[in-house]
Amino acid sequence: MDGEVSHTMDDTFWAPVTTERMVLRLTPDGTGWVRDEVATEWPLTLYLNGEEFVTLVASPDHLDELVTGFLASEGVISDVSEIISLAFDEETGDARVDVSADTAGLKERLFARRYITSCCGKGRTSIYFDNDFRTAKASLSDRRVSPEEISRLIDDLQASSGIFQSTGGVHNACLATPEEGIWAARSDIGRHNALDKLYGWALREKKDVGDAIVAFSGRVSSEILLKVAKIGLPIILSKSAPTELALAMAQDLNITVVGFVRQGRMNVYTHPERVLVTEGVPS
Amino acid sequence: MDGEVSHTMDDTFWAPVTTERMVLRLTPDGTGWVRDEVATEWPLTLYLNGEEFVTLVASPDHLDELVTGFLASEGVISDVSEIISLAFDEETGDARVDVSADTAGLKERLFARRYITSCCGKGRTSIYFDNDFRTAKASLSDRRVSPEEISRLIDDLQASSGIFQSTGGVHNACLATPEEGIWAARSDIGRHNALDKLYGWALREKKDVGDAIVAFSGRVSSEILLKVAKIGLPIILSKSAPTELALAMAQDLNITVVGFVRQGRMNVYTHPERVLVTEGVPS
Repeated sequence: MDGEVSHTMDDTFWAPVTTERMVLRLTPDGTGWVRDEVATEWPLTLYLNGEEFVTLVASPDHLDELVTGFLASEGVISDVSEIISLAFDEETGDARVDVSADTAGLKERLFARRYITSCCGKGRTSIYFDNDFRTAKASLSDRRVSPEEISRLIDDLQASSGIFQSTGGVHNACLATPEEGIWAARSDIGRHNALDKLYGWALREKKDVGDAIVAFSGRVSSEILLKVAKIGLPIILSKSAPTELALAMAQDLNITVVGFVRQGRMNVYTHPERVLVTEGVPS
Repeated sequence: MDGEVSHTMDDTFWAPVTTERMVLRLTPDGTGWVRDEVATEWPLTLYLNGEEFVTLVASPDHLDELVTGFLASEGVISDVSEIISLAFDEETGDARVDVSADTAGLKERLFARRYITSCCGKGRTSIYFDNDFRTAKASLSDRRVSPEEISRLIDDLQASSGIFQSTGGVHNACLATPEEGIWAARSDIGRHNALDKLYGWALREKKDVGDAIVAFSGRVSSEILLKVAKIGLPIILSKSAPTELALAMAQDLNITVVGFVRQGRMNVYTHPERVLVTEGVPS
C-alpha cells in the first residue's frame, strides 16, 4: 500500500513486530516451556529540522506513516507535501525529517499539550489545547451506516489483526467504508500510534477520508477522539467503552461514537442520526 | 484507608467517577434508549512549588494518592514526608503541592522522559531514562506464589473493580499478598494512574511493599514495568500481554512477570523461580 511513496522503508529493515521467546505456561493440565510471541516495543527517536524532537515508542512497522501522522496530529504539517525529506538511519533506527514549517519552540508546546493544558476555564467540555484548536474540526459528513455494517466492520478489524491474535499486546485500527470494506488496517502497542499510522497512510495516499469510518479495538478517550477529529472522520466504532469527556467532545465536533460493538449489540453514544435503524432514533 | 492523612479530600468533592447518560442501544432483539454509565475523564492541573507543572487526566477519585504516587514515580519525592503541603482548589479542582526538593528545570526533564530519551546507545535493553535510573531498582524479594494464588488474586481484582463492571472503561490494579489478600485496589481511565494511585497509597500508609504483588488488568508495557520497579514490587500479574521491552527490563530488574492469567491458565515470562510449581521450573 505504501509502494508509491519514495521514502518508504522496506519493512524488513526494522525489528520484527513480534519476538519469539520461551515462556513457562501453566495450565490446569500441566506445566511446560513453550515458544511464544510477544509484541516488540521500538523506541523511534525523531529529529525534526536537525534537532532531537521526541522519541515515540511504537511497534516497528509502517514507521514512515507513523512519523507523517504524528506530525500532522501535532499540527506540524497539514499536508504531506510539507515534508521536505524523511529518512531513517540504518545504524541507529533514528528518523530524520525536515519540514517546511518553522519548528522553533515546538517541543515546549508539545509538552504542554501532552499533559493537557486547559485553556478556557474548567468547563468540562472546554478542555482543548493549543494545537488541537488548530487541527480539530467538526465533521460535516452525512455518511450513514447500518448496524449490520457496523458489526461487519468490527469483525473485519479483528480478522485483519494478525499481531493481536498472536500476542494479545497491541491495539488495532482500520479505515473503511461500508461500500469498499477496509482501506488500511494498522496495529501498534501504542493506542495513539495505530491511529497516527492510519492518518499518515491517508495523507501519503492523498485519500479523502471525510466520509470514512474508523474501527478501533481500544477505549475511546478524549485524546483518541481528538485524533479522529483531526483526521476528519465522522464515525468511530469501538469494541470498548468511551469516556465521558470524549463523548462531550464528540457531541461538539459532530462525530458519531459507537461503543461496545459485540455480537450484534452496540451502544450509539453521540449523533445517532448517522446510524440507520428502523426504530428509536430521534429525528 | 486514607483517613489518617490530614490532607485527604472527601471523595464526594470530586466529580463522580462515572456519569450517567442516555445511550441508543441496538441489539438483535430491538433498539431503544437506555440509561448507561460512562467513565469520567478529569483533568487535574498540578501546581508544583507555585508553578504550573502538568495536567494529569484521571478518574477523579483518590487524587491525593495520584499526586503523591506521580511525584514519587517521577523522582520528585522519595518519601511522603517531602511533601510540605498538598491542597485542592475547590473552585478549579487544581492541585497545589509544595515539596522540599528544588523543582527548577523539572518540567523539561519530565518532557524528555515522557517520550523516552535513549541515553546509552540503541541496545534494546538499555533504554532507561534520567529519572528512571534514579528510582528504579532491582527487586531483592524472595516472595513465592503458587498458580492457585495467582488465579485467586486476578479473580479478586476483577471482583473489586466496581467501575470496570459498570463502564468497561477503566484499568484496575491492586496491591496484595497471598496471605492477606488485597491491601488496596484502584481504578483509573489512565493505565499509569491506577499504579500511581497504589504507589501513593503505599507511601502515605508507610506500607512496606517489597514482598507484595501487583495484579493489573492492562498490558504490561515498559512504562508499566518501570513503575512496578520504582514502587519496589517483585511480581506483576496481568490478565493481558507483556511487551518484549518490558520483559527485557523485568529480566534485568529481577521482576517476575505473569501474563494472560485466565481460567487457571497463565504464562510466566520472567523469573519463574518465584512461582511455585511442581514441574518444569529450572533450578
